Amino acid sequence: MIRLTRRYLFAASHRLHIPSLSEKENMDLFGKCANPYGHGHNFAVEVTVKGPLDQKLGRVVDLAALDHLVDAAIIQPMNRRDLNQDIPEFAKELVPTTENLMTVMMDRLKSVWPNNFPHLDRVRIYETRKNTFEIQNI
Amino acid sequence: MIRLTRRYLFAASHRLHIPSLSEKENMDLFGKCANPYGHGHNFAVEVTVKGPLDQKLGRVVDLAALDHLVDAAIIQPMNRRDLNQDIPEFAKELVPTTENLMTVMMDRLKSVWPNNFPHLDRVRIYETRKNTFEIQNI
Amino acid sequence: MIRLTRRYLFAASHRLHIPSLSEKENMDLFGKCANPYGHGHNFAVEVTVKGPLDQKLGRVVDLAALDHLVDAAIIQPMNRRDLNQDIPEFAKELVPTTENLMTVMMDRLKSVWPNNFPHLDRVRIYETRKNTFEIQNI
Amino acid sequence: MIRLTRRYLFAASHRLHIPSLSEKENMDLFGKCANPYGHGHNFAVEVTVKGPLDQKLGRVVDLAALDHLVDAAIIQPMNRRDLNQDIPEFAKELVPTTENLMTVMMDRLKSVWPNNFPHLDRVRIYETRKNTFEIQNI
Amino acid sequence: MIRLTRRYLFAASHRLHIPSLSEKENMDLFGKCANPYGHGHNFAVEVTVKGPLDQKLGRVVDLAALDHLVDAAIIQPMNRRDLNQDIPEFAKELVPTTENLMTVMMDRLKSVWPNNFPHLDRVRIYETRKNTFEIQNI
Amino acid sequence: MIRLTRRYLFAASHRLHIPSLSEKENMDLFGKCANPYGHGHNFAVEVTVKGPLDQKLGRVVDLAALDHLVDAAIIQPMNRRDLNQDIPEFAKELVPTTENLMTVMMDRLKSVWPNNFPHLDRVRIYETRKNTFEIQNI
Repeated sequence: MIRLTRRYLFAASHRLHIPSLSEKENMDLFGKCANPYGHGHNFAVEVTVKGPLDQKLGRVVDLAALDHLVDAAIIQPMNRRDLNQDIPEFAKELVPTTENLMTVMMDRLKSVWPNNFPHLDRVRIYETRKNTFEIQNI
Repeated sequence: MIRLTRRYLFAASHRLHIPSLSEKENMDLFGKCANPYGHGHNFAVEVTVKGPLDQKLGRVVDLAALDHLVDAAIIQPMNRRDLNQDIPEFAKELVPTTENLMTVMMDRLKSVWPNNFPHLDRVRIYETRKNTFEIQNI
Repeated sequence: MIRLTRRYLFAASHRLHIPSLSEKENMDLFGKCANPYGHGHNFAVEVTVKGPLDQKLGRVVDLAALDHLVDAAIIQPMNRRDLNQDIPEFAKELVPTTENLMTVMMDRLKSVWPNNFPHLDRVRIYETRKNTFEIQNI
Repeated sequence: MIRLTRRYLFAASHRLHIPSLSEKENMDLFGKCANPYGHGHNFAVEVTVKGPLDQKLGRVVDLAALDHLVDAAIIQPMNRRDLNQDIPEFAKELVPTTENLMTVMMDRLKSVWPNNFPHLDRVRIYETRKNTFEIQNI
Repeated sequence: MIRLTRRYLFAASHRLHIPSLSEKENMDLFGKCANPYGHGHNFAVEVTVKGPLDQKLGRVVDLAALDHLVDAAIIQPMNRRDLNQDIPEFAKELVPTTENLMTVMMDRLKSVWPNNFPHLDRVRIYETRKNTFEIQNI
Repeated sequence: MIRLTRRYLFAASHRLHIPSLSEKENMDLFGKCANPYGHGHNFAVEVTVKGPLDQKLGRVVDLAALDHLVDAAIIQPMNRRDLNQDIPEFAKELVPTTENLMTVMMDRLKSVWPNNFPHLDRVRIYETRKNTFEIQNI
């Protein structure tokens, strides 16, 4: 069993703000990240698949097919976008923290994951050089 | 003469959009970067000073003083902010490209630069791993 | 369950030297790292926590609280310090290898870890670009 | 139990090409990586060992001994080499994908791993900044 | 005047070998880099342009146009290629050192550089993390 | 004319402290960097040479010869050492700031630079990710 990790880059903006709370409560919770007009990041997202090696082709997944899938499901819709305004999952109650962004990405990938693909093992996001978030798909 | 370069990080959002142009013209000019709700980056800005070495102290500038100056002039006002909405220089005609952001930063630094500081030599901004912009202060 | 990894930087010096061994034995064991006046590194330490997502806040831990805890327990006491001379755990027999530094950090973090924090999952140290050490907290 | 990861760099060339398939089939499978004269990469390979800490020496493995072993088994034979032409394992049917290169490296390391070494836990290869492959040794 | 630097990645193989010299002379000159079947690198090339800021558009060059030019002139022809076999400039006497690769790239860019582009200021190549080469266009 | 930059790594410790000043004055000047037992860094030093391309060999300098020179003059004597105690230039009045370390390195290189080498153009030191120092050799 081999694990392949593929790295994708995108740039987006977000504002950490819970509408049902007051401005002061939001500021206490999220600090500068609750500023009214938002801010942004160069995000990197890593998608890890896990599976056996195809003996003839010497690979665990068709990288072109994986890229196509990931690009359509999460990179194109989110790159150069504002998470609060442009992403339907964040339209209502869900606050677009990077933790929630990660679970949204995992859910989107799982919903389109082909049966003949190796197991989707992990999604990891780098928000800045200081912060990494990851979720395992069990 | 020695050059010291100090690196500062901040995260901000911007939208590349010229109000006097149509949506289509903006899209033709700036592509996805003209998306209506903006996007963002982890920016790194490097400030370079150039001067002689203080023989006794073995340094070209007091780093704590430099940090204090840069932080007050450009990092605190721009970190976790939206350039279009929060930065006065971009309130009217000036489009917040990273090139313009760099000249705004250079102007702000020059306007507060103390006489007893070594020469402000260069401002450089990394927008993504692919794009760097720099301006020399002659 | 989500894992969040937070990265902290500090610079310190150490000398790899076991007092009960001869100079030659120390040199055979540790090479240049046993040089009499020590040397140093820019260390990076990553602290990983693992827990469920708070549905309302969209996060697994309060980052400001985590930073405060880690800073007080291991970064402030060790940054710009000499491990052999300044850190009580290394005052007697314990040789300040980065492996031992990591276990000291894990022990310090566990001793102050609040009950309402998510699980302290892992401590990882980067000594140089070539060497990484990690310990899982089971 | 502690895990130590050691990073080694080497540069090599390869061509992804299965002799029993036509040129077109190879191109469909591997794209530009099937170009007739090959191409190359700066590879990084990370070897992870897992074991208890030696109480007296404060380490999990003798790094000099590990370096010597890894260098002789996989770095010296592969650095500045062409995988297709210079590496016996790729002389016949086995296509030198980085996935297969990784299993070849794991096999070579296991065949010379000393009994008194800690467990060989993982081999990971970085082919480019976008692609990582890893295999666990169970 | 502003300088913009744009980074492009490609992977290629080369062999440092002067046909008019003996094997031993080549080995004495180039060491392992003269190995008969070659080796390869992940190269990064940075193209720097220098010019005034367009006041309305807030930029020094149209990045999409620059990317198109650089991609056609040097990235597409060299990515996933063998420099010795696939690049006409290296067909005869010219040895494909990274220094020569850089001058070939500079020459190719100059031959297609549009009159309405800002000045082509510099080409820089990263061969490995240890080696950088740059040439100024005067 | 081509510029080649070669990167070398070393780890060392230092203490910023001027003996003729009081403890308080040193602390005011250098903060934590004046702590009594010192601290350390993973330094990177880049040596840049500038010269014409040798037409036959396709290079500006013999890298093996450059490495040998730099290693003997500055890397071997300083790697895994304490700058205050082990480096003669810092034995008396000279405080081992990284600025002074850079000028010491430039002086050492100039004193052994062979006549048949290309011009020694620049020495640059990275102390941390935030601080870079460079000196031009005119």
